[in-house]
Amino acid sequence: MPSDATTPQPSHDQLATKAQAWSALFEEPMSDLVKRYTSSVFFDKRLWQADIAGSLAHADMLAAQGIISAADHAAIERGMATITQEIEAGQFDWQLDLEDVHLNIEARLTQLAGDAGKRLHTGRSRNDQVATDVRLWLRSEIDLIDGLLTELQRALVEVAGNNVEVILPGFTHLQVAQPVSFAHHLLAYVEMFSRDQERMRDARRRVNVLPLGSAALAGTTYPLDRERVARTLGMDGVCQNSLDGVSDRDFAIEFTAAASLCMVHVSRLSEELIIWMSQNFGFIRIADRFTTGSSIMPQKKNPDVPELARGKTGRVVGHLMGLITLMKGQPLAYNKDNQEDKEPLFDTVDTLKDTLRIFAEMIGGQANAAGVKEGGITVNAQAMRAAAQKGYATATDLADYLVKKGLPFRDAHETVAHAVKAAVAQGVDLSELPLAVLQGFHPAIAQDVFDALSLEGSLNARNTLGGTAPAQVRTQIARHQARLAL
Amino acid sequence: MPSDATTPQPSHDQLATKAQAWSALFEEPMSDLVKRYTSSVFFDKRLWQADIAGSLAHADMLAAQGIISAADHAAIERGMATITQEIEAGQFDWQLDLEDVHLNIEARLTQLAGDAGKRLHTGRSRNDQVATDVRLWLRSEIDLIDGLLTELQRALVEVAGNNVEVILPGFTHLQVAQPVSFAHHLLAYVEMFSRDQERMRDARRRVNVLPLGSAALAGTTYPLDRERVARTLGMDGVCQNSLDGVSDRDFAIEFTAAASLCMVHVSRLSEELIIWMSQNFGFIRIADRFTTGSSIMPQKKNPDVPELARGKTGRVVGHLMGLITLMKGQPLAYNKDNQEDKEPLFDTVDTLKDTLRIFAEMIGGQANAAGVKEGGITVNAQAMRAAAQKGYATATDLADYLVKKGLPFRDAHETVAHAVKAAVAQGVDLSELPLAVLQGFHPAIAQDVFDALSLEGSLNARNTLGGTAPAQVRTQIARHQARLAL
Amino acid sequence: MPSDATTPQPSHDQLATKAQAWSALFEEPMSDLVKRYTSSVFFDKRLWQADIAGSLAHADMLAAQGIISAADHAAIERGMATITQEIEAGQFDWQLDLEDVHLNIEARLTQLAGDAGKRLHTGRSRNDQVATDVRLWLRSEIDLIDGLLTELQRALVEVAGNNVEVILPGFTHLQVAQPVSFAHHLLAYVEMFSRDQERMRDARRRVNVLPLGSAALAGTTYPLDRERVARTLGMDGVCQNSLDGVSDRDFAIEFTAAASLCMVHVSRLSEELIIWMSQNFGFIRIADRFTTGSSIMPQKKNPDVPELARGKTGRVVGHLMGLITLMKGQPLAYNKDNQEDKEPLFDTVDTLKDTLRIFAEMIGGQANAAGVKEGGITVNAQAMRAAAQKGYATATDLADYLVKKGLPFRDAHETVAHAVKAAVAQGVDLSELPLAVLQGFHPAIAQDVFDALSLEGSLNARNTLGGTAPAQVRTQIARHQARLAL
Amino acid sequence: MPSDATTPQPSHDQLATKAQAWSALFEEPMSDLVKRYTSSVFFDKRLWQADIAGSLAHADMLAAQGIISAADHAAIERGMATITQEIEAGQFDWQLDLEDVHLNIEARLTQLAGDAGKRLHTGRSRNDQVATDVRLWLRSEIDLIDGLLTELQRALVEVAGNNVEVILPGFTHLQVAQPVSFAHHLLAYVEMFSRDQERMRDARRRVNVLPLGSAALAGTTYPLDRERVARTLGMDGVCQNSLDGVSDRDFAIEFTAAASLCMVHVSRLSEELIIWMSQNFGFIRIADRFTTGSSIMPQKKNPDVPELARGKTGRVVGHLMGLITLMKGQPLAYNKDNQEDKEPLFDTVDTLKDTLRIFAEMIGGQANAAGVKEGGITVNAQAMRAAAQKGYATATDLADYLVKKGLPFRDAHETVAHAVKAAVAQGVDLSELPLAVLQGFHPAIAQDVFDALSLEGSLNARNTLGGTAPAQVRTQIARHQARLAL
Repeated sequence: MPSDATTPQPSHDQLATKAQAWSALFEEPMSDLVKRYTSSVFFDKRLWQADIAGSLAHADMLAAQGIISAADHAAIERGMATITQEIEAGQFDWQLDLEDVHLNIEARLTQLAGDAGKRLHTGRSRNDQVATDVRLWLRSEIDLIDGLLTELQRALVEVAGNNVEVILPGFTHLQVAQPVSFAHHLLAYVEMFSRDQERMRDARRRVNVLPLGSAALAGTTYPLDRERVARTLGMDGVCQNSLDGVSDRDFAIEFTAAASLCMVHVSRLSEELIIWMSQNFGFIRIADRFTTGSSIMPQKKNPDVPELARGKTGRVVGHLMGLITLMKGQPLAYNKDNQEDKEPLFDTVDTLKDTLRIFAEMIGGQANAAGVKEGGITVNAQAMRAAAQKGYATATDLADYLVKKGLPFRDAHETVAHAVKAAVAQGVDLSELPLAVLQGFHPAIAQDVFDALSLEGSLNARNTLGGTAPAQVRTQIARHQARLAL
Repeated sequence: MPSDATTPQPSHDQLATKAQAWSALFEEPMSDLVKRYTSSVFFDKRLWQADIAGSLAHADMLAAQGIISAADHAAIERGMATITQEIEAGQFDWQLDLEDVHLNIEARLTQLAGDAGKRLHTGRSRNDQVATDVRLWLRSEIDLIDGLLTELQRALVEVAGNNVEVILPGFTHLQVAQPVSFAHHLLAYVEMFSRDQERMRDARRRVNVLPLGSAALAGTTYPLDRERVARTLGMDGVCQNSLDGVSDRDFAIEFTAAASLCMVHVSRLSEELIIWMSQNFGFIRIADRFTTGSSIMPQKKNPDVPELARGKTGRVVGHLMGLITLMKGQPLAYNKDNQEDKEPLFDTVDTLKDTLRIFAEMIGGQANAAGVKEGGITVNAQAMRAAAQKGYATATDLADYLVKKGLPFRDAHETVAHAVKAAVAQGVDLSELPLAVLQGFHPAIAQDVFDALSLEGSLNARNTLGGTAPAQVRTQIARHQARLAL
Repeated sequence: MPSDATTPQPSHDQLATKAQAWSALFEEPMSDLVKRYTSSVFFDKRLWQADIAGSLAHADMLAAQGIISAADHAAIERGMATITQEIEAGQFDWQLDLEDVHLNIEARLTQLAGDAGKRLHTGRSRNDQVATDVRLWLRSEIDLIDGLLTELQRALVEVAGNNVEVILPGFTHLQVAQPVSFAHHLLAYVEMFSRDQERMRDARRRVNVLPLGSAALAGTTYPLDRERVARTLGMDGVCQNSLDGVSDRDFAIEFTAAASLCMVHVSRLSEELIIWMSQNFGFIRIADRFTTGSSIMPQKKNPDVPELARGKTGRVVGHLMGLITLMKGQPLAYNKDNQEDKEPLFDTVDTLKDTLRIFAEMIGGQANAAGVKEGGITVNAQAMRAAAQKGYATATDLADYLVKKGLPFRDAHETVAHAVKAAVAQGVDLSELPLAVLQGFHPAIAQDVFDALSLEGSLNARNTLGGTAPAQVRTQIARHQARLAL
Repeated sequence: MPSDATTPQPSHDQLATKAQAWSALFEEPMSDLVKRYTSSVFFDKRLWQADIAGSLAHADMLAAQGIISAADHAAIERGMATITQEIEAGQFDWQLDLEDVHLNIEARLTQLAGDAGKRLHTGRSRNDQVATDVRLWLRSEIDLIDGLLTELQRALVEVAGNNVEVILPGFTHLQVAQPVSFAHHLLAYVEMFSRDQERMRDARRRVNVLPLGSAALAGTTYPLDRERVARTLGMDGVCQNSLDGVSDRDFAIEFTAAASLCMVHVSRLSEELIIWMSQNFGFIRIADRFTTGSSIMPQKKNPDVPELARGKTGRVVGHLMGLITLMKGQPLAYNKDNQEDKEPLFDTVDTLKDTLRIFAEMIGGQANAAGVKEGGITVNAQAMRAAAQKGYATATDLADYLVKKGLPFRDAHETVAHAVKAAVAQGVDLSELPLAVLQGFHPAIAQDVFDALSLEGSLNARNTLGGTAPAQVRTQIARHQARLAL
């Protein structure tokens, strides 16, 4: 396969327009409407780095296998270096007529490198090329997201570290349930985001597999060394079936599902931030730069960022639904439907990255010149404490107290219900009932009951693995600090 | 409320930056990341015409009610005329700092019209303003979509008109079922798209209601005449509850649901076009300009447009899911989450319009200089007929024939099953079995059975309302022609 | 077509098992797993009334057209009467082997009525039969839902009627915005549910169309009078295209989309009820019978019903997404996929009906023996008022006050922001600042400012159509009472 | 904490009805409608084995830690053994009044074991109990699904093994692209299902973590040994944060997302089976027991199972969307919304298991008495071959042939397009053009071109990793056989 063989017919530039790239079979050019409908270059050009990286790894292998000459290889490398500079400088002339990022780059390469550029496409097709590009691009985005998830967890752990002793009413059903450490509450989100990180890493393993060499659908007649290409690109393996290689979009769906779950977690945290910032709670404040005012109500500071993040959950979930609908019922192998995978995937990545970045800063603040973080959430410990003292948050502690005196739990539960009813009637907390009154509900109650009924007593008593006792919370913080290299 | 009252303090330009627009309460400016995350101007600027129309109607009413002076009104009108020219000429300076289309236009108006510009916001807020803008914009888009649905139905009816006698195998379960007229098949889609049109019109009634005057959430203290504004804007009514007015996004969801159904219909038609174009069917061809080739397989002509349309169904359905997720569980009244309604809505409209336009042309062709349509789908009647002759498409006709001879349907059904089994074993169609053989299955069978077993006989026999007999199909075509003013 | 013609071969009971019903073509029986996977009788038997009604209307028409004899018609009617009794008495023997409701009833009819039963299936197929059944069933369910929507609106209007003067802090972004009447807030939901009702009625028009007579897919060879059947069944029209008639499931999707929107409204109301019931708000209580306690925390009363309703929104939305996914990309005409339309549709109807019923009662209470409603939500007007006095809810009123003194709105807005900042610093409401201090922000402020700054003053001032002023709210209540025949 | 302490007040059976179980706080019983709306026992009773297993592990730990006495522990074990027998025998009296599986079992235990039964609930709540139950149940279901995925892959590999040399037209865009081995095509699905298996195993790691000991939300005051419980139950770890432990439903969403992807794969395979079975393809037959007939068309054999499976994809995707919607925006910790996680999860598991089981059998057949598999899909190699010979499937091979003669790929591609155009015009395949004609397109073409243009030549030429050459396919089959222990 001598690349210097005389080319027996004029090698004019078939890539100059899309229809010519395809073949002489086509009798009419595309209308502008059809071009716009079918072309992807205005969104897929963001894959350019992946496209060039994939092409260079492919060219390197073609040369190593003797499929193209060393001279061709060098010409391709020079051409790609020029194209890289042009794109980075904003001087690359992206053309709708050339449909997608691949043909745009290849056409330019052929202008720069002549027949060498045309030989680059040997042993591959756009079907495996685009699948490779998207996987390479997504892999690097996952790595960025992984880093952002670490940053957000760090922010949460840092704020937790400053609020171990701050007591919040823990809610179930948004009703006051039991007192919890504010740090403990924040660490629940660290658990969620660390699971998201695990899922991203699991997805990455399935993203980071090489389809290149699947060619159009059936593999190629050239003696490719696909494993060399995978090594060059740092991929974990090679797609073992060419039909699957060009048609698989599992990785996009799996990633978007993981992103959706992460956004669900963001939406839960946002909901809480919004509730906590309402005047009736007043538990926290977020810095002014994450809020907006009103064009009509002069007193307003609205938690726009958490609200938008909650709303953007819908956006990402919508993309998941869209991608699943896209793939449902598609026969093998590649169908043009698949081109619709990109915009939802791109927007999911953008939305998730922006959201994680802004949340890390909104929660934890930003390092100032001295390296000290400023401008994270402001905690109103007093408002939290006041709220925790409403709602009979320590009623369970009284029941547990009675169990420790020998009652079966179910009986203790009922006894306390009567006590709560009486306290409600008098408009006081359980801890404000006199000992004698409490003893009326059960004779085993003694002076030490008031320790159990205090917020601190309740907190400290939940001192088993995963519980809210400050000792446990500090252990968890230490674990996370080690895990997150804080 | 004299608009010429002396303004007792320097009226500097608070709209110059967003934070200033809000109020003096804010202690720090937004970071660029937050600006990007929260601003909408780069997508909502497409609402500019609606925004200006709404503002002009509002100003007209403010003047009529004596809330602003005639001079202010005139200044606002002049300013808006200038802004309209600037935007149309591409010379308007859209600023991220001004967050959205509303503040961008209002800030420019204030530069042009001074205090009059500032008075425009009297009695409204961005909450009711944006709801009004989106409704006005969507109403006009629905009207365009309505027109495109008419065009697509016309294309289908025209092609149907040329193919009443063309016989296609009707499928159930993608198995040959009974012969049908190709026109009849196309008219099934006319039914679907005409239902889509009805749903669009129903949705329009609920879109075309005026929220303006709801102000931030509670109504306004100015003596507005909301019905005058509604009349000026051609709206069908006025939102009767201000809290609902600013927070309702039903109209966006209802529209997107109707659009999703329409895209489901497109996906069904696309699926059929793709199957019909496969070499094993070969029923139709679409013009080259709606297909693309392959960078590797020189023989390929791929039905890209139907495939993309099938794929874009996922996109629109994803937007529906996103919008529903967005609204789920939102407390009253306006929350910033709602800003996320726009991009899915805009993309739904764009996708639907492009798809309908391209399908009308792909099916029906385009009028040439002489007004004759060219370039629509090409029908291969012979391939359809050949396929209809496979699969024992007239077996039901034999059963019906026997019923007419007095058998209960269930018995006739079983008798025919035995005949089909014998024909399968011999590799022939029922109509190819000799009369004597057929009579072996039932003595009532006579020579006239062969009329029943012919494709034309089968087709003509289904001559009741909604059936596939050419006479019925022509009646339907006439009905649609009248309906669609063809 | 004499129904008394001699039947030339033994008319054994081919319906006794499913495979026999189909035909002699099948060489092996279904496995139990396949039977279970493909059969629908255990969920579609709820269609039995519609199935019988449709069959009776069909038989009536067959007789009128002379397709079956009067004797056969009578036998079918007697048979169906017996079957109705058997089903109502719980004595009908539903058989998995007979796959679906249609074959179960037809098989029993044939046992009861002999060949007449077999003749019932003349001119129809299961494809148009099931479409007819589902439409008839859904039509009656929509009517029930319409009634329940009326009940829920009545409950809301009644509670509103008792709370016109109760003042709640209106929120935007869950931040205190402006005072609103609690009645006004409830009426926002009346608007939503009334739109749901409109959508249900629009959907009903498209549900209530007759597919029967489309037969398997192509119409029928019998001289049916489809319009007679439609009249008998009270339907608004006849499907005009047989292929569309058997394959259309738009009506199910449109209904489920309308139901999803309704559940989104329920989720919003639920979210508010849950927040209002939290101890930090304490705005309302719901009756104990709509709450549950905790097995561990004796003090708990949890708003289970609103929470479940909020959760069930996901269920209905999931069904919508499932149905759309189901139909995406299906070629014409009927495919077995469509059988999957039923369970989501049934569950959507059940969920929506239960939810609406329980909400009407939870909000408005139940009529006692004396016809007085008891046990609806309990309103804590004092807690609402206290909350409204936080958060500078009347700041906009101060701005409006200044505009009426001649300031441009934007300037007034900024002036008030300074006043709010000062009040925040002093920890007081604007109305608690001395006049002199207020005048420091603007000299136009006079003693009458305190009217504007009061909650009642603020409320009364918003006295335009749709505003929260009690006068407006009363007008709306009267409108709704008339509309809902209260 | 002596469990034998005298219980100072009558220990009547508070669990007898739900309201009593909660507490004395409740003033009215639930209405039947509310009971039905809020109770879960009729669907969550399927968790009974997990519930009992979890309780026994908890009791074992309570005893080991000295929190309950050995006697109590023994009484609990005896009671649970009795309950297990009762449930297995269908004699357990499930009561709606007792709301859920947990209270039903606990109430019965208390009847059987007295106060010991009441002590079982020490240190736990229903919030952590239900989370534990669902995780235990789902873990075992994932293991079953894993096994079924293995079975399905085995069936595909076995059929592939018999069809390595069978040539199918490989499609892209449903247009003939290049010849592929039918085995290669089937192995593409093995890749998909093996990824599904990986995802299930990844999900399992996150499912198999113990929430028990989180108690209501904050941990417990009893000195639990949670790691002992985890070991007893075979779990991989312990939830490290109690708030997260009771509120996390990530595992359900992640599982359902993995199930959705698996169903998308099933839908793709189903689509192909349906197309392959259509008369115009005729590539395969599936056994009669997986098809159904028509009540009206005697000739029909419909591929019901693949169609239903394709339809059931919507069902599972709908559940995924439902679950995500459910969790969006929920504040911590447990909310009743979460009860709605069960039905979609249960139905997803049932649907996926049934579908995988039936597909394994439909593809691969069932072992007969002699252990030989019978009744899988029947392959029509001749029809596949005939189809592969249409559509110029070897055009790429001609282009590759020219590249090997020295042409740049892009030039070869264009040359072949001209050749195809000529062949189309003559209605022949490329291989049917005489050598002289072919040489007219390019002089480098020689006699050996006809090897390249044959189906076998094309297939054998694609002999790189992942390609369709029989040698490659056999390597893959061997790899899968080892992997699947075949």
